[in-house]
Amino acid sequence: MSQVAEDNARLEVAIARTRAEVAGLHAELVRYGLVVWTGGNVSGRVPGADLFVIKPSGVSYDDLAPENMILCDLDGNVVPGTPGADRSPSSDTAAHAYVYRNMPEVGGVVHTHSDYAVAWAARGEEIPCVITAMADEFGGPIPVGPFAIIGDDSIGRGIVDTLTGHRSRAVLMRNHGPFTIGATAKDAVKAAVMLEDVARTVHIAKQGGELIPIPQESIDALYHRYQNVYGQTTDDRR
Amino acid sequence: MSQVAEDNARLEVAIARTRAEVAGLHAELVRYGLVVWTGGNVSGRVPGADLFVIKPSGVSYDDLAPENMILCDLDGNVVPGTPGADRSPSSDTAAHAYVYRNMPEVGGVVHTHSDYAVAWAARGEEIPCVITAMADEFGGPIPVGPFAIIGDDSIGRGIVDTLTGHRSRAVLMRNHGPFTIGATAKDAVKAAVMLEDVARTVHIAKQGGELIPIPQESIDALYHRYQNVYGQTTDDRR
Amino acid sequence: MSQVAEDNARLEVAIARTRAEVAGLHAELVRYGLVVWTGGNVSGRVPGADLFVIKPSGVSYDDLAPENMILCDLDGNVVPGTPGADRSPSSDTAAHAYVYRNMPEVGGVVHTHSDYAVAWAARGEEIPCVITAMADEFGGPIPVGPFAIIGDDSIGRGIVDTLTGHRSRAVLMRNHGPFTIGATAKDAVKAAVMLEDVARTVHIAKQGGELIPIPQESIDALYHRYQNVYGQTTDDRR
Amino acid sequence: MSQVAEDNARLEVAIARTRAEVAGLHAELVRYGLVVWTGGNVSGRVPGADLFVIKPSGVSYDDLAPENMILCDLDGNVVPGTPGADRSPSSDTAAHAYVYRNMPEVGGVVHTHSDYAVAWAARGEEIPCVITAMADEFGGPIPVGPFAIIGDDSIGRGIVDTLTGHRSRAVLMRNHGPFTIGATAKDAVKAAVMLEDVARTVHIAKQGGELIPIPQESIDALYHRYQNVYGQTTDDRR
Repeated sequence: MSQVAEDNARLEVAIARTRAEVAGLHAELVRYGLVVWTGGNVSGRVPGADLFVIKPSGVSYDDLAPENMILCDLDGNVVPGTPGADRSPSSDTAAHAYVYRNMPEVGGVVHTHSDYAVAWAARGEEIPCVITAMADEFGGPIPVGPFAIIGDDSIGRGIVDTLTGHRSRAVLMRNHGPFTIGATAKDAVKAAVMLEDVARTVHIAKQGGELIPIPQESIDALYHRYQNVYGQTTDDRR
Repeated sequence: MSQVAEDNARLEVAIARTRAEVAGLHAELVRYGLVVWTGGNVSGRVPGADLFVIKPSGVSYDDLAPENMILCDLDGNVVPGTPGADRSPSSDTAAHAYVYRNMPEVGGVVHTHSDYAVAWAARGEEIPCVITAMADEFGGPIPVGPFAIIGDDSIGRGIVDTLTGHRSRAVLMRNHGPFTIGATAKDAVKAAVMLEDVARTVHIAKQGGELIPIPQESIDALYHRYQNVYGQTTDDRR
Repeated sequence: MSQVAEDNARLEVAIARTRAEVAGLHAELVRYGLVVWTGGNVSGRVPGADLFVIKPSGVSYDDLAPENMILCDLDGNVVPGTPGADRSPSSDTAAHAYVYRNMPEVGGVVHTHSDYAVAWAARGEEIPCVITAMADEFGGPIPVGPFAIIGDDSIGRGIVDTLTGHRSRAVLMRNHGPFTIGATAKDAVKAAVMLEDVARTVHIAKQGGELIPIPQESIDALYHRYQNVYGQTTDDRR
Repeated sequence: MSQVAEDNARLEVAIARTRAEVAGLHAELVRYGLVVWTGGNVSGRVPGADLFVIKPSGVSYDDLAPENMILCDLDGNVVPGTPGADRSPSSDTAAHAYVYRNMPEVGGVVHTHSDYAVAWAARGEEIPCVITAMADEFGGPIPVGPFAIIGDDSIGRGIVDTLTGHRSRAVLMRNHGPFTIGATAKDAVKAAVMLEDVARTVHIAKQGGELIPIPQESIDALYHRYQNVYGQTTDDRR
C-alpha cells in the first residue's frame, strides 16, 4: 500500500472510531439526566486530523448511531459526501468548532442544559469550591462565561476566553448553560456529569446555611494528587 | 373506488395513525416524570376532520394502547360505535375540545400536573424568561391562566384566552397546572417536557438569589432563530 | 360440597387473591420512589373475613412474593400454619390491625417514609390545599397526627382518631411519616403516591413565595365531582 | 486434608464470597443514586483473616465483577499475585484500612459523595434527629468528622475518632462526604442508603420551617427496639 493509501486508511479508522465513541457517549447524558428531548450535544476531535464529529440537530437520543453523527472541519462545515452529511449538525456546531480551532489540547466538547448548572448560570454566579470532589476534578470554582447568543463566534470565544489557563474544564455560559471540554470526548462527558453533581450539591448546601470554604493550599494539593494518581491510567484520572 | 369510499378510507387511516401516535406519546409523559398514577393526558386532532383522539379516564399508563384511545368530536362527545367508545374519555376532554374548536392551528393538547409547573401555578406566578432555552422554545415568560374548575367551558376558555396571540405554547392554569398546545400532538408533548424543565431550572435558580434578565431583543433573536433554523425539519424545530 | 366446605374454599380464594394483590402493590412503592431498602409496607383486608395480609419485616422488595406475605387476624397476630407464618410480619402490623379493627370501611393501609411527606411531618405542619389535584383526591388539607412511638396502640389510635370523619385518606404522623387508607389496598397505595406528589409540589411552591388558597366552595365542588365522576368505575375514582 | 490445607481452603472460600458480595453491593449504590461516574466505594472484611476486599480505582460501575475487586491487607497494601492485583485499589483504601485496623467489630465500610449528605458536610453541620427512622437506624444525630485530605491516615483517624463509642454508623467528613461502617459490608451499604435518605428528608424539612425535636427518651426507646426486634434476623435489624 502506498503511503497516501495507508494514511487514508488510518484516517478512515480514526473517523469510524470517533463516530462510534461520540454516538455512544450521548447515552451517558441520558443516563445521568443531563438532557431532555433532543437537547445537548457531544463532539469529539478525530485524532490526527483537522476534523471533529458531532450530533445532528433535533434528533431523538433513541435514534443516535455512529452513521448519523456528522463529520465537520474545524470551521464547522459539514464534510460533503460523508455519512450523515445530508442532515444539519447540532446548532451549537460553530461553538464546538471555535474551541477545537483555538484549544489544540482539547479532544472533546460537551454542551447540556443540565438543571442545576443552568440555575447558577441564570444568576451569573460561579460555583464556589467547597467540596473536595470539586477540588479534585476542577481544581477550584466553576467560572462563569459571558452572555452570548447563537449566530457568530461569541459563544465559542466566551468558552475559550474563560477556560484558557483555567484549571476548570467547565464553564457556565451566563443565562445559557454549561460547556465542558476534555482531553477526549469521554473526559468532557465526565466533566459534564461531575459538574451537574457539584452544581446540585453546592446549591443544596448553600440553601441550608453558611458554606465552609476549603483552604487554597488544600484545593491545590487535592487537584494535583487527583490529576496524577487517581484511576488506573491517565484517562481515568480526568 | 368512489370518491366517498376513498375519503372514508383516508379518514380511517388518519384516525388509526392519530390513535397510535397519541397512545405512544403518553409514554413520554412517564419517561420524563411528568405524571403519576393515571394523571395527565395527551390528545391529537385527526388531520382533515373535526375529530380528536384522547386518553380514557383513570386508566393505567401501562395499559394504554391505540385501541383504547377515545375518538371525540369537537364538542367533546365520544363518537359512538368506535373502539374505546364504551369507556369514559379523560375528564379534561371538554377543555381539549374547546381548544380544538377555537384554535384551528392547534393539532395537539397536553395536560399534566408536573410538579414544578404546578408549583408556579399554586402561586399564580409566571415563569420569567431568564434562560436562553426558554427564549428559544417559548419566546418569553410562561403565562398564568385564570382559576377555573371543571364543569363548564371555563378551563378551555382560560387556555384559549391566555395563549391566543402569545408566543408561549404553555399556560399555567392557576392552582391547577399546565396545559400545552402544539402544531401536532408530539409538539405539544415536547412543550410539556420543556416547560417542566424550565419550571424546575428557574425555580432552583430563583431559590439561590437574584436572577439576571435576558434583554428583550436577545429573547426575540433567539426565538426567531429557533423557530426557523433548529432541527432537520419544521417539526423538529418545535 | 357442604356449605362449610364452600365457605372455606371461597375464603382460600379470597386469601390467595389478597396475597397476590398486596405482594404486587409493593412494586408501586418502588416505582414511585416512596421507599428505600426494606422500609414501607402495604396491607390488604381479606374480603369477607376478619383477616388481613401484610409484608414481612426487613425483607428486600426484590424478594416479595404472594407466598411470603403474612396472614394476620385483626389483633395483628400471625395465623399459625399459613404460608409465611415462620417469619415476622412488618413491625407496623399492630398499627395496621388497629385501623382494620376500628374502621370497617377500610380495605387497605399503606405506610411509607416518602421524603416530602416526612418533611412536613418533621415540622408537624399540615399540607394546605392549594392545588386542585389535592382537592380532587383528598378534599382539603392533609392532617397531622400525634407523635407516637411503636410499642402499643398509640400509632393505630393516632391514625384512626385523625382520619375518622375526615375527607383525607392520608395522615402525617408527627416526626414519623405518612399512613394512608383506602377502600382497597390499591386505593391506599394510590393515596400514598398522590400524597407524596402533593407534599413535594406544595413544598416547592411554598419555597418560592406566597401560596394562593383555593376557596372552600371550589374545594368542595372538586372533591364531590372527583369522587363521583372520575375514571371508569368507582375503583378508578379513588 | 491437613489442617493447613483445610485452613487455606476455608480462607479461599471466604475471600471468594467477600469478592462476590462486595462486587454485588456496588450495584446498590447505583440503584439508590448515591454515586456518579466511578465515584464511591464499598469494602468488606474477609471473615477470619486480616484482609479486606475493595473496589479498584476509577473503574466504571458497569465493569465491576468479583475478579476485579482487589484484596488488601490491613495496612492497605494489595496482596500480590491475587486477581485484580495488577490494578490500583480505590484511592480511599488507606482510610478503609485504618478503620479495619482500629475497629475490629467493623466488617464493611462504604464511602460515597451522595448529594444531600455532602451538602450537610459542606456546612460542617450535623443532621439533627427529628424523624423516627433516624432514631431507629442511627440512634441520634449524624456527626461531623474533621476536615482531612488524602495522603496520610487523617481521614481514617477522623472516621474512627468520630464513630468510636457513637451510636451512628455514619460520619460526615467535613467538606468531603459520608463514610459508613457496619457489621457487614451489606450493613454499611444499608447505612449509606439510609443516611442519604435522612440527609435529604431533614434538609427538605428544614427548608420549610422550624423542626420539632424528638425527646431523647423516645430516641433511646426507638433505637433499642430497632436494634433488637426489627427484621427476621440480627442482620436485617441493621
